[in-house]
Amino acid sequence: MLQSNPRPVPLLLSHSPPSNRRSPRPFASSCLVQDQEEPGRAVDPGPQQPPPQPPRRVSTQLNRWSRARAIRSGHRIDWPSLRQKTAGLPPPAPTPSDSSDLPVVPAEAVDEVGDEEDGCEVMEGKAIYMVSDGTGWTAEHSVNAALGQFEHCLVDRGCPVNTHLFSGVEDMGRLMEIIKQAAREGALVLYTLADPAMAESAKHACEHWGVPSADILSPTTEAIATHLGVAPSGIPRGAPGRREAPLSAEYFKRIEAIDFTIKQDDGAKPQNLNHAHIVLVGVSRTGKTPLSIYLAQKGYKVANVPIVMGVDLPKTLFGINQEKIFGLTINPVILQTIRKARAKSLGFNSEMRNNYSEMDHVREELEYANKFFAQNPKWPVIEVTGKAIEETAAVIIRTYHDRKQKCSMPRISKRY
Amino acid sequence: MLQSNPRPVPLLLSHSPPSNRRSPRPFASSCLVQDQEEPGRAVDPGPQQPPPQPPRRVSTQLNRWSRARAIRSGHRIDWPSLRQKTAGLPPPAPTPSDSSDLPVVPAEAVDEVGDEEDGCEVMEGKAIYMVSDGTGWTAEHSVNAALGQFEHCLVDRGCPVNTHLFSGVEDMGRLMEIIKQAAREGALVLYTLADPAMAESAKHACEHWGVPSADILSPTTEAIATHLGVAPSGIPRGAPGRREAPLSAEYFKRIEAIDFTIKQDDGAKPQNLNHAHIVLVGVSRTGKTPLSIYLAQKGYKVANVPIVMGVDLPKTLFGINQEKIFGLTINPVILQTIRKARAKSLGFNSEMRNNYSEMDHVREELEYANKFFAQNPKWPVIEVTGKAIEETAAVIIRTYHDRKQKCSMPRISKRY
Repeated sequence: MLQSNPRPVPLLLSHSPPSNRRSPRPFASSCLVQDQEEPGRAVDPGPQQPPPQPPRRVSTQLNRWSRARAIRSGHRIDWPSLRQKTAGLPPPAPTPSDSSDLPVVPAEAVDEVGDEEDGCEVMEGKAIYMVSDGTGWTAEHSVNAALGQFEHCLVDRGCPVNTHLFSGVEDMGRLMEIIKQAAREGALVLYTLADPAMAESAKHACEHWGVPSADILSPTTEAIATHLGVAPSGIPRGAPGRREAPLSAEYFKRIEAIDFTIKQDDGAKPQNLNHAHIVLVGVSRTGKTPLSIYLAQKGYKVANVPIVMGVDLPKTLFGINQEKIFGLTINPVILQTIRKARAKSLGFNSEMRNNYSEMDHVREELEYANKFFAQNPKWPVIEVTGKAIEETAAVIIRTYHDRKQKCSMPRISKRY
Repeated sequence: MLQSNPRPVPLLLSHSPPSNRRSPRPFASSCLVQDQEEPGRAVDPGPQQPPPQPPRRVSTQLNRWSRARAIRSGHRIDWPSLRQKTAGLPPPAPTPSDSSDLPVVPAEAVDEVGDEEDGCEVMEGKAIYMVSDGTGWTAEHSVNAALGQFEHCLVDRGCPVNTHLFSGVEDMGRLMEIIKQAAREGALVLYTLADPAMAESAKHACEHWGVPSADILSPTTEAIATHLGVAPSGIPRGAPGRREAPLSAEYFKRIEAIDFTIKQDDGAKPQNLNHAHIVLVGVSRTGKTPLSIYLAQKGYKVANVPIVMGVDLPKTLFGINQEKIFGLTINPVILQTIRKARAKSLGFNSEMRNNYSEMDHVREELEYANKFFAQNPKWPVIEVTGKAIEETAAVIIRTYHDRKQKCSMPRISKRY
């Protein structure tokens, strides 16, 4: 009774063709990466691209691995040959009065400041170090979200930024190495460290060496601690001493959702559509597959069904609960751009390319899809142009829960 | 930025069989959900489960949707019949001195405090409201990570918590409704609001109505703003006025990685193994597929190859760059538990079940896999027992970048 009307879906159209802008280049390493296959390393030969800045320092490669291993294992390392290279650094060791502020920093870690170099060339732009004693995904996610607030200057690399994620930082020695390197590079340090002693040391060491820093998660953790009246455990996620979560029903549900979604990709097994939580319908390259996968990781079983001109939609689609079905549509100009890129990467011949990415065909196929959408008013139709996958996913999940729940304020609830 | 960084949902494996503990019930709605297919809604008829607490308040369903719509559209709503139900709430309207603290809160929104109810039953346990003007994934991710610090009391629902995600909160009226409802429910409000006026109003309204609150992202955003010397835009991700991210090379790379990874699932197309960035090898139910998908969403092309006793590994596996290959192994007792659940859900007959999940077979197959791992010392072998998917992924990505980069300190770098 209260389930028929989805929330009005915000429409977002991109008015500029994509070729007008330079792409940001995430995952581009600050190190000399030799393998050309590195993922996410955008090949961007755009004419506006400024020539790369020469690295400010290039180090020897010698023994880097064993040094890295030694640092990680917590052993003291001596690099006499590198001692001369650290001019201009903040004072290396705490003064006696500082020592009381740094009670848990092992003396050898502090002593080592300036003793070694990182072995990476320093890139142009401001550096942000993300340091975590866990996976680092929280730091990465938060910094990414925060950087979204600076897109006005990041686009076209107006204020170039390099982020560096250091995950699994479990010992004080390694933490101090990273902060010292941040001092050398003039980096901002953003950290999530569950162990209060580690977090405290990070804060003091950053202050001591003049490194700007912030604790990403502490306001949230502190607010929750006060609200629950329970102190945080101080144990990083995944640490050996940590009490582990059970092999929960949730675990199996998620795995099942991913398995299901992969098997239902691209119109496969239409007889199973009734087992899906969400069914996505749209023409090729409206992002059905990545969206399905994203939703599956959140525990939803998703099937996606392509709309192809001249091919009937499976009959089972019209027999299932129609409230599960979501249509996807997209601006034809953008769709053509995406399809051209796709046709190229798949090595289509000219005839296939015409059928797939010529503007007349693209428009015709989108109109063909729109007819289905008009005939099935229960399917919310989401305009995906200009939307990130997670934005479209948020709209779908919100609508999905809106339709199921009886709250006046749409919400997605979980119980712990 | 067209990044779909999913919140790393902990997919945990544990040493305890699932029946020993009550499962948390994520996604279990605080509302009366009728559809039994809701994802992630763990069906847990365990004997230790206490009977559900009776709801403290159940409201009428009447007109809820139109009220919700009116709230969202910003219209003034009058609910005379509900005015009596709000005893015990914080003072409904700001005093004159308070008004100066709430300059941007529309008067009608503040006036309405206590005028309506949410229409959801209030559940046992402490409530945490997550409020976002964007997708809400950052709030969800951060709160989940912070809750990881309270697992010692969350497990077995020692201190039950309910989270409620309100995403796409773009207007002041709706924001105020949510905070008022939080006041009624005694909830903690954790918010990410890009618009400084909205964030300021949230803060003041929470103070005014006695709602504990914290701004999740502001320390990070402020630290970055200071570091870059640039003010944040104040525009939420996905907002219509926002400068849009380009159809970047990164976007295409991610889509391509997901497409590739789906096609290479479960040993398919061994001739393409050389195109993968990462190849996962392990026996059935070591989590190869969900791990592959997780990595694909981060932009890595992943192939996974099952080790099955009596079936040869594809020859191409030994012809590719061996540094791409990662072995997965798992505790046999846990593997048996997972396989039993799997066999049940797939409806295996008893013979198939024996071959798949009997302990002798499980041990034998793991030993068969270990032989391969011993013969191929270049493959790092990761023990996945007790690790969440994102934890295993962190280890793999760290190792992957370690091997490619020449930094002494392993790091994953991106350029913006």
